[in-house]
Amino acid sequence: MTELIIKAKKANEVTGLLGAASTQQKNEALTLISEALLSEMTFILEENVKDLVAGTQAGLSAGLLDRLTLTESRIKEMASALRQLVELEDPIGGVTFEAQRPNGLELKRVRVPLGVIGMIYEARPNVTVDAASLCLKTGNAVLLRGSSSAIYSNKALVQVIHKGLEKSSLPVEAVQLIEDTSRETAEKMFKLNEYLDVLIPRGGASLIQAVVEKASVPVLETGVGNCHIFIDETADEKMAIEILVNAKTQRPSVCNACETVLVHKEWAKLHFTSLVDALIDKGVELRGDELALNFDNRVIPASEEDFATEFLNLTLAVKIVSSVDETIGHIKKYGSKHSEAIISETKKHVEQFFTYVDAAALYHNASTRFTDGFEFGFGAEIGISTQKLHARGPMGLEALTSSKYIILGNGQIRS
Amino acid sequence: MTELIIKAKKANEVTGLLGAASTQQKNEALTLISEALLSEMTFILEENVKDLVAGTQAGLSAGLLDRLTLTESRIKEMASALRQLVELEDPIGGVTFEAQRPNGLELKRVRVPLGVIGMIYEARPNVTVDAASLCLKTGNAVLLRGSSSAIYSNKALVQVIHKGLEKSSLPVEAVQLIEDTSRETAEKMFKLNEYLDVLIPRGGASLIQAVVEKASVPVLETGVGNCHIFIDETADEKMAIEILVNAKTQRPSVCNACETVLVHKEWAKLHFTSLVDALIDKGVELRGDELALNFDNRVIPASEEDFATEFLNLTLAVKIVSSVDETIGHIKKYGSKHSEAIISETKKHVEQFFTYVDAAALYHNASTRFTDGFEFGFGAEIGISTQKLHARGPMGLEALTSSKYIILGNGQIRS
Repeated sequence: MTELIIKAKKANEVTGLLGAASTQQKNEALTLISEALLSEMTFILEENVKDLVAGTQAGLSAGLLDRLTLTESRIKEMASALRQLVELEDPIGGVTFEAQRPNGLELKRVRVPLGVIGMIYEARPNVTVDAASLCLKTGNAVLLRGSSSAIYSNKALVQVIHKGLEKSSLPVEAVQLIEDTSRETAEKMFKLNEYLDVLIPRGGASLIQAVVEKASVPVLETGVGNCHIFIDETADEKMAIEILVNAKTQRPSVCNACETVLVHKEWAKLHFTSLVDALIDKGVELRGDELALNFDNRVIPASEEDFATEFLNLTLAVKIVSSVDETIGHIKKYGSKHSEAIISETKKHVEQFFTYVDAAALYHNASTRFTDGFEFGFGAEIGISTQKLHARGPMGLEALTSSKYIILGNGQIRS
Repeated sequence: MTELIIKAKKANEVTGLLGAASTQQKNEALTLISEALLSEMTFILEENVKDLVAGTQAGLSAGLLDRLTLTESRIKEMASALRQLVELEDPIGGVTFEAQRPNGLELKRVRVPLGVIGMIYEARPNVTVDAASLCLKTGNAVLLRGSSSAIYSNKALVQVIHKGLEKSSLPVEAVQLIEDTSRETAEKMFKLNEYLDVLIPRGGASLIQAVVEKASVPVLETGVGNCHIFIDETADEKMAIEILVNAKTQRPSVCNACETVLVHKEWAKLHFTSLVDALIDKGVELRGDELALNFDNRVIPASEEDFATEFLNLTLAVKIVSSVDETIGHIKKYGSKHSEAIISETKKHVEQFFTYVDAAALYHNASTRFTDGFEFGFGAEIGISTQKLHARGPMGLEALTSSKYIILGNGQIRS
């Protein structure tokens, strides 16, 4: 048997124990892991350096190297996140439906763990601890498959997680790292329906695309955000500019950042120059349609492709529109159903936008940057779902649960 | 463009209208379709005969021909089911979460349609009306892809559904039949992520398996039920026998029928003969392990395969066990996570069974045959989910919904 099959089988074997674990047992394990992270900090940092040296030699970009880097303060943050997770309510066992049937059957639906979660991600070692702890809190076993460029860090972190688990009453097989980082093994994981209940890919568009296309295990798709902000005719000038600048520039590399602004032509007549001033002041490059170019010659021509692009940098596509209908049509054509905002003082238009735009999160007079498990108050986040099944938008602990029906009878048979 | 792409695009285009439709509009459409089914009964029956003639010539089994057959009373039942659907609460627009954030953002999560549902099913024309009406009630567009053996019936039924829709305020593109029943077209449908939000396969294990393996569109898996009943040492004799006879024989061909009985050896010592008497009286063939054979020589030897088989007929696998632990282990090994029952008067064993058995529905002292949307009081059922994401167990109207977050602000930006 391969490493993958051995570990997947083991994960599957401990699902019963994990599902039966009390909140106290799980919290104790999280606390022990948090302590182990702090006491093993030197070891983790030493191993991380091996990845950084290899990454530098392999010519990884500065951005990737930064994501790969662990520091004392980053490890402290991980440990602190674990202690915060202890405080969160345990969703397992919660009753989500109850009914007494005319034949006397008592029916209830309770939250249970999903079972075994396959986490497939790129070179961010913090995801290792993040995913392991969220899965533990919800009684799930997890198979972690990180990137080869973070293999020393991931092995060290899982070793430290195991130190914590060994002192706890939970099995160490709850968290396992697949050390074979070959593509073939990842693809075998996509098809491991016998042992895996769900796959969660986290990373770039091509990783997620590969999982969605090839997996037979159900997938929780996370990811791409081609987010729009529509500035309506009645939008408050100052508010519209502040929101757009925030959504575009506060952290351009993330999925809830704004990629296209749609500006109502009547608003543009009065305020387009101020908008462009504010954006250029922040270093934004504007690529617009012909009308936008006519309004302001600092805008450069956009290609069709630009409107379909998740730039993840300081580039912004700009389109001048004549109505909320045109806006809705544009978003339907180019949007990725992540986060979309309307800035307007016209109630009817807001309602129309909320009804007809299909996305995980719709905003009125606020920045798209709020689409986030912590900002929504969930206290944790395993990713942002851009699919419509199971969970949509920021996924907190509940997204890592399934349910079962418990039916109590006293001899009922079906006639 | 192929028929599939043309229709999928049209379906996708009307999702906005359907999502915005009021409960009244949808109920009116359902009522008009119900009336059209009754007024076009002769036409439907005439077209159905064409399928039956072709089916007979092709040598379809009596069972398949029966499933294919429409009669006046079956059409009346369809029409009546549509009227019942009108009475059910519309899940769309329901608020499932609300929060006010410290920064003043008002957050709520509302139920919305999934979008476009691809329904792939076998030779049962009643699924055509069933799926179309459940999708309509939940504001979803549906692409129906039935079997070639039911093509005349399906075309007729969709034509009649369109007659109803034409008189309503909803677009006829809400319900479309893919008339090309080739396997290639079905497989293209599996990959149509651009236009389809979910696939629901309904039919035999091989159809479902093919969809799960090949689809990149998210799947709501329905299906296989290798259901167990465990008769514990303390089970009431009469109750245990009644429940098992019911679960095995009341309708053996369905997924919630019992396929294996696990009998505690102490109970077996006292009551096994009566149990075998009752089952044989109903025509059941018992295939047991060695211990079962020792208890009663009317039991024939079971193969390993028998314990993994969904017989869907009057065959029952029998195993004598020594504990609830052994039972849980057996179900983990052979079960399909559908419906499992324990007959016992020992509270501790019931709790253990409920905690450690992983299935959509767990019963204490009741027949597994109750796993059904109508029996659970949902008033409708699109299938029984045997997966853990999105929906588990009988799927009513809520399983056909997704959600979106609506966030109201007054200028909030992220710092």
